[in-house]
Parts: sequence; C-alpha cells; structure tokens
Amino acid sequence: MRGAFYPQALDLGHSFPHHLFADRLPVSSPPPTAAALTQDDLKRIAAHRAVDLVESGMVLGLGTGSTAAHALDRLGDLLRRGVLRDIVGIPTSLKTAAHAAAVGIPLSDLDAHPVVDLSIDGADEVDPALNLVKGRGGSLLREKMIEGASRRFVVIVDESKLVPCLGGSGLAVPVEVVPFCWKYTLGQLERLFDNDPGFNAKLRTFSDKEGVEMPFVTDNSNYIIDLYFERGISGDLDAVSDSMLRFPGVVEHGMFLGMATSVIVAGKNGVTFMEK
Amino acid sequence: MRGAFYPQALDLGHSFPHHLFADRLPVSSPPPTAAALTQDDLKRIAAHRAVDLVESGMVLGLGTGSTAAHALDRLGDLLRRGVLRDIVGIPTSLKTAAHAAAVGIPLSDLDAHPVVDLSIDGADEVDPALNLVKGRGGSLLREKMIEGASRRFVVIVDESKLVPCLGGSGLAVPVEVVPFCWKYTLGQLERLFDNDPGFNAKLRTFSDKEGVEMPFVTDNSNYIIDLYFERGISGDLDAVSDSMLRFPGVVEHGMFLGMATSVIVAGKNGVTFMEK
Repeated sequence: MRGAFYPQALDLGHSFPHHLFADRLPVSSPPPTAAALTQDDLKRIAAHRAVDLVESGMVLGLGTGSTAAHALDRLGDLLRRGVLRDIVGIPTSLKTAAHAAAVGIPLSDLDAHPVVDLSIDGADEVDPALNLVKGRGGSLLREKMIEGASRRFVVIVDESKLVPCLGGSGLAVPVEVVPFCWKYTLGQLERLFDNDPGFNAKLRTFSDKEGVEMPFVTDNSNYIIDLYFERGISGDLDAVSDSMLRFPGVVEHGMFLGMATSVIVAGKNGVTFMEK
Repeated sequence: MRGAFYPQALDLGHSFPHHLFADRLPVSSPPPTAAALTQDDLKRIAAHRAVDLVESGMVLGLGTGSTAAHALDRLGDLLRRGVLRDIVGIPTSLKTAAHAAAVGIPLSDLDAHPVVDLSIDGADEVDPALNLVKGRGGSLLREKMIEGASRRFVVIVDESKLVPCLGGSGLAVPVEVVPFCWKYTLGQLERLFDNDPGFNAKLRTFSDKEGVEMPFVTDNSNYIIDLYFERGISGDLDAVSDSMLRFPGVVEHGMFLGMATSVIVAGKNGVTFMEK
C-alpha cells in the first residue's frame, strides 16, 4: 500500500481528547484491529505510515528519538529490498547519523542539500494547531534547522503526546543555551514566566560513571535548560518564542511553531492523520 | 576631576556628521587642546572619561577591544593607587579576563553578580539613536549578555565610529552562528537581505601557521558570519533583529539596539557626551 495514505481508524477511545481535536478528526468506520498494543507498537505504526510517503530520489530529514528510530529501520528495510532507491538522508543528530548509517541509508547534510523534500520525526507534545514541543532528546537545534528547511514535515506520535496547549503535559519544554553564565540565562527565563506560579526551570544533568551530576551537553556543545509549566504556556506563542530568542544566552528552544505540515497519531484503536 | 563628567569640547571639525547628531550635541566652548591626536589617543581619552564614572564598590562590565583595553589599564592604575577600591570586574571575553587579571582587577561572572552597575565598552558603529554594531572582535555574545545585565552601559568610541545608520560604514555586521550547517545559515541570511543589491555575507576566517584559511572560532566555540551592506540596514531594526534570531543556526548578532545609555565620543577637537 505504498503511496496510499488514509486514516484507517479514528475511534481512539476515551483517553483521546476528542473535544480538542474534533474539527481535525474525520468520521470513520471502526478499527480493523483492536488488540492490545504497546506504546512502542503505536510508535512503530505511526513511523511506518510516515515512511509510506517516501518516494525514490527524495532528500529526507531523519528525526531523532524512539519513534523516529522505527522510521529509520523501516527505511533501511525498504532500501535493502529495492523498494526505495536514491534516498539521501539528512540526520538531525549524531545518534541518528550512526543509526541511519548502520541500516544503510546514504547520508548528507543541509549544506549540500539546502532543500529537504520530506522530514519525519517524533515530538514530545502536539497541540490542536499542530504546534510541537520537541527536544527532550536534546537535538532540538539540528531538528529545527533541518525540519525548517523541509517542504513537508510529518510528525509521528502515539496518542499520549496530544496536549491541549504546549507545556501542558507537565513535562519539559527544553531550551538550548550557551554554557557561559547559564545561571544568568536561567534567571532570565524565570523572570519571563514569573506570572505562572507553578513554573520551574532546571539545568538538564546526568550522572557520570562516578555518580557525579554533570550538565547534559548537546551535539552543538551547549547546555539544555528544561522549563516546566503547571498548566502549559499561556498567551501568544510566537511572542513567547521571540522573547526567549532575544536573550543572548538562548540559542534555540523546543517550541516548533507552524512547522509541522501533518501529524500521524497512532492510538490504541487506530491511526489518525491531522493536517494544517 | 573624578566624578565630574561634562563635555569639554564639541567642535569636532568638518568630518563630524553634525546634521545627524545635531539634536544631541550641546553647544560648548572651543576645545582646550587642539594638537594633532592619533586615533589611539582619542580612544584613550574616551576610555579615561568613562572610567571617571566608576565608583568604589561597583560591579563593572569590562569590554573587549582596543578602546576598552585603555579602560582596563586606567582601572588597574586607579586600583593600584588606591583611588578605587572593592571593584569586581565581569569580563566580556577570555582576552579581557587575561588583560584585567594582569592589571590587578578582581574578576567574577554574571552567575555570581546578575546585576552589573556599569559596563564600559567600545563599539564598531554608533547611530544617532545610540544603537550599536559590535563584535568585530568576535565577543558579541558575552558582551551582549553582560551589557544587557547592566544598569548603565557607557560606550566609548573615537569619532570615526559614528554612522548615519547601522551597517553604514561598509564594514562587517557580525552574526554568531553554530558551526553545524553554517552554509545553510549563511544562505538564510542572504535571502533575508536580498532586497539590498550590494549585500554580501562571508564566513570570518583567519590564516593558520601553514597559511590555511580556517574558520574564526568564538569564545563559545561558534563561527562568525560577517554581513556587509552597501548603504546600511534599512527598515525596522527590531524586526530585522527578530528575523535573524528566528533562524535556528543564529546564536546572536552584533546589533545592540536600545542598550547603550550613553556614548562618549572622542574627536580631534574634543569629547562629546551623547545620552538617550
């Protein structure tokens, strides 16, 4: 069924916030399969649907994260079997570059291919207007550069990623910052959101081999400050974005506004296709 | 005369664009000295005037470049002589940190001192609204962070730095970019200014010991793309700033808009004090 791309099932069960996405969900027949699926199954289903959109000869943006990894495996499989040919992949992280090379996807970069036909990537949150939070994996800057250069940007998620507003999951909205005086930049971010009583900002860290907390370092040698909101980000998201970007220490943030052209949502009861 | 700070002379000769700065230049008596001064003499004069504003106990932002270097020497001299005490300097570059340490200025950073009393720094261009171009020395990000955290930001220049509009000197307006796919980012900057027929953008390079051209690397491990304009930057500078900052590969740019609280201009015929 390569090339065909239709929602197969739209009854996503009571956990799906239908009231928020109602105008985007066409009515459909019940799902063909309703067996218990794991979250990883759902990620794989969404990824395979996205890879159905790939045609031979395309320049592809290759996302980072557990959902995008399923797309890489599928692409490698189709290349090996000769179903796809002449694909060039632009990886959004060093990790994705290694994975893609291992499954046989030829790689290049934006300097050589400044226009990307199609990017496929996961997201941490998707709002009803298809705005995203990305970058919990730490690759937000390269993802934003490559996905911003794409004619079409297809996001693949399981239904747990749908939120009424960005930041609404209570999980991190990441901001990539220069290491120089990061505490000062953290203070600037705190002041920007000081009207949100539940707001919290933290440097992302990890424990090294000796158990010492160390700053997480991005592929661009920067740090990540994770923002946590009690009820999500209120107000004009474009204005919030510009305010953050004006801080000298902020390199980029994980809100991807107006960039996704479609979102494939895999739920326990089927697959939904949301378009702008 | 520490503490006093008045323009001593305002007849800056026919090379000074009076028509552009007329509303900022108070009328004054002729200069006390009219001997031939070198550009370096003028830089030193402006720097010493700025250091007259420093009081014991202040947290000071220490600029980078040939004019700011004169301020460091003067500060070191006043500290050694006991005229100033309890100064903490926040250096805007590794080079300035080394110079300041060598002349005996105690150093700290923005993390420890998020509010700076007074910053003193040079500029590459100053327009009539006191907007600046900075960063030809490559330290624009740290300068913008520290000078943006300052209650008062005094700019010290010789009169050759005054321009009718930013970019108007024909010299570089620097943009700090992540090394990842810098050619793609350069292409985005070219498209942003494609209505300027004389516009040109170039990666800043230097020749290494073997004569090989290498990218110039900033203190934050980024690259610099230098923008050149035929007739300066036209239009709304804040909008141009936001457009550049929205490119994922752009970390910061060298336009300092609305940040300078005063500018001390040393000219062949005297010193001028411009305030917002």
